[in-house]
Amino acid sequence: MTDFETFNLGRVTLQSGATLPDMQLAYKTYGRLNAARDNAIVYPTFYSGSHVDNEWLIGEHKGLDPREYFIIVPNMFGNGVSSSPSNNPPPYDRGCYPHVTLYDNVAMQHRLVTEKFGIESLRLVVGWSMGAMQAFHWAAMYPEMVERILPACGAARCSRHNFVFIEGLKAPLLLDPEFRDGFYDAPPTRGMRAAARVFAGWGFSQAFLRQRLDMEAMGYGSLEDFITHFWEGDFLRKDANNILSMMWSWQHGDISANPLYNGDFDRALGSITAKAIVMPGRTDLYFPPEDSEYEVSKMPNAELRPIESVWGHFAGGPCANSVDARFIDSAVSEILAM
Amino acid sequence: MTDFETFNLGRVTLQSGATLPDMQLAYKTYGRLNAARDNAIVYPTFYSGSHVDNEWLIGEHKGLDPREYFIIVPNMFGNGVSSSPSNNPPPYDRGCYPHVTLYDNVAMQHRLVTEKFGIESLRLVVGWSMGAMQAFHWAAMYPEMVERILPACGAARCSRHNFVFIEGLKAPLLLDPEFRDGFYDAPPTRGMRAAARVFAGWGFSQAFLRQRLDMEAMGYGSLEDFITHFWEGDFLRKDANNILSMMWSWQHGDISANPLYNGDFDRALGSITAKAIVMPGRTDLYFPPEDSEYEVSKMPNAELRPIESVWGHFAGGPCANSVDARFIDSAVSEILAM
Repeated sequence: MTDFETFNLGRVTLQSGATLPDMQLAYKTYGRLNAARDNAIVYPTFYSGSHVDNEWLIGEHKGLDPREYFIIVPNMFGNGVSSSPSNNPPPYDRGCYPHVTLYDNVAMQHRLVTEKFGIESLRLVVGWSMGAMQAFHWAAMYPEMVERILPACGAARCSRHNFVFIEGLKAPLLLDPEFRDGFYDAPPTRGMRAAARVFAGWGFSQAFLRQRLDMEAMGYGSLEDFITHFWEGDFLRKDANNILSMMWSWQHGDISANPLYNGDFDRALGSITAKAIVMPGRTDLYFPPEDSEYEVSKMPNAELRPIESVWGHFAGGPCANSVDARFIDSAVSEILAM
Repeated sequence: MTDFETFNLGRVTLQSGATLPDMQLAYKTYGRLNAARDNAIVYPTFYSGSHVDNEWLIGEHKGLDPREYFIIVPNMFGNGVSSSPSNNPPPYDRGCYPHVTLYDNVAMQHRLVTEKFGIESLRLVVGWSMGAMQAFHWAAMYPEMVERILPACGAARCSRHNFVFIEGLKAPLLLDPEFRDGFYDAPPTRGMRAAARVFAGWGFSQAFLRQRLDMEAMGYGSLEDFITHFWEGDFLRKDANNILSMMWSWQHGDISANPLYNGDFDRALGSITAKAIVMPGRTDLYFPPEDSEYEVSKMPNAELRPIESVWGHFAGGPCANSVDARFIDSAVSEILAM
């Protein structure tokens, strides 16, 4: 992967207290920053994705049109492109990579946006899943800077149920003897496959499988083929320590878990003055719409707009079907025109 | 456990083709069979439960009142009390125990009921979860014999989504090197704990954890305590091969997967002439009410009556809260009076 640039953050002190002497934030931009520096959009990546996986929502005649906007896609720490267990040097390498929060991620993205590009306000922060969580963080951490957010299939904090779901993903991976506390030479493929198999029940909805869309819409030959090909295949392309690092960030994502809000979640939500269209998936099993509904009720300028879809969490993201993808894209256009 | 009796089935040929020379069906009865032999109720056990775990719904002044009815609780094969991987002699012991279907279970329960007790008709078959699946099997396999069924939080077949969910439970257990293909000497406790941790996200609903009922209703000290104590604690009391045997039965449960219906699920549902109150949990994540709705639409004498509860699958069963338990118990009384 060479189609990106890297911002050297220098020595960074993380929220955990660990210091990374040479932390790297990889990013890709689309379009051009205008002279007024007021056409920028930040579009963070999702769990296990990279900037490439965000391109489904970018393009001419789409809401995120690079002819009009300067779209910055920062890679989340732990995704293998920005600083991650898989690429960081000792002593903070592999199984000893420190915990990184979404607060850390967004604070470093803020440095990229301000120090590298001299941008003082953002038209929009948009993201799917953990990208949506980062959008919420942007709006709560830099309310004066963020004009709009559009979080899809995400939340302002990881719910207790969502936390337990991820515990179930971690468990088989940690159990694989080949994992060796993160200091494996060969990848712990059996643990990764088992984690993928756990994830397979969660990603799409009951209705999605009832309607056999794994076969009829996605083209897999059987349910087992869907589990093996789509889920295990995806996990086997990733690094186990990276996966675990991002899972930790996910589980501990909370816009109020920082000195700005000291755990006062309602106050953090109330501080989000950005215009917001909050788009949960109607059948999302781990970011359910009820959590979004609560969040919107505490946000002064937010609208709840569920994606009426049986695709579960995957109502968004690069696997989104065209109907759901257009629905999200239309909302992007709409909020940018507000 | 000695508070039960055993019916020796002799040599049994299972649906799989395997023969068990001395298959044992353990059961417990409550109340007395009347002279007309027409006051019997069958109440099969659920996944991982035994007859003792069914007692929450039995008692004086309850619907299943032993002063009035003769209640037979047959232990499901694989549960460690009836024939199971853990108690069957070689060559079909432990990791070599054959697959047992719910069809096999109910066919053998039918032998108990008819051969041992001379019963020709049943007032009711009632069950929770896999017990509900067995109730559906009874009604489809012996429609002339079953007057009423009340399946709670179950289904007439395991849905594709439910199948995937169970794949996720099996994966970590099979991965534990201590499991040794089922021929372990010491129990594979790490795999069992991991499987329990996966199950923890599924058993209750998102709303249950949002409302912190793990702590406030069930009394656990933290989310981690709930996972460890309730989930891992429960799994550690079970045998891994038994767990896997019952999971297989669950995944392959289907009232039409037999020579009577040759896979024609709608015809099998249509054959259920018994009066039925079908009671899914409104927030059950793996036996969702939509599947029950479909089933009821194909059954000639069935009513859909969801349990309006945030307790997910555990709207029923021995952990059910008193409100949900009373709701089910009232329906039992009501259907028995029909």
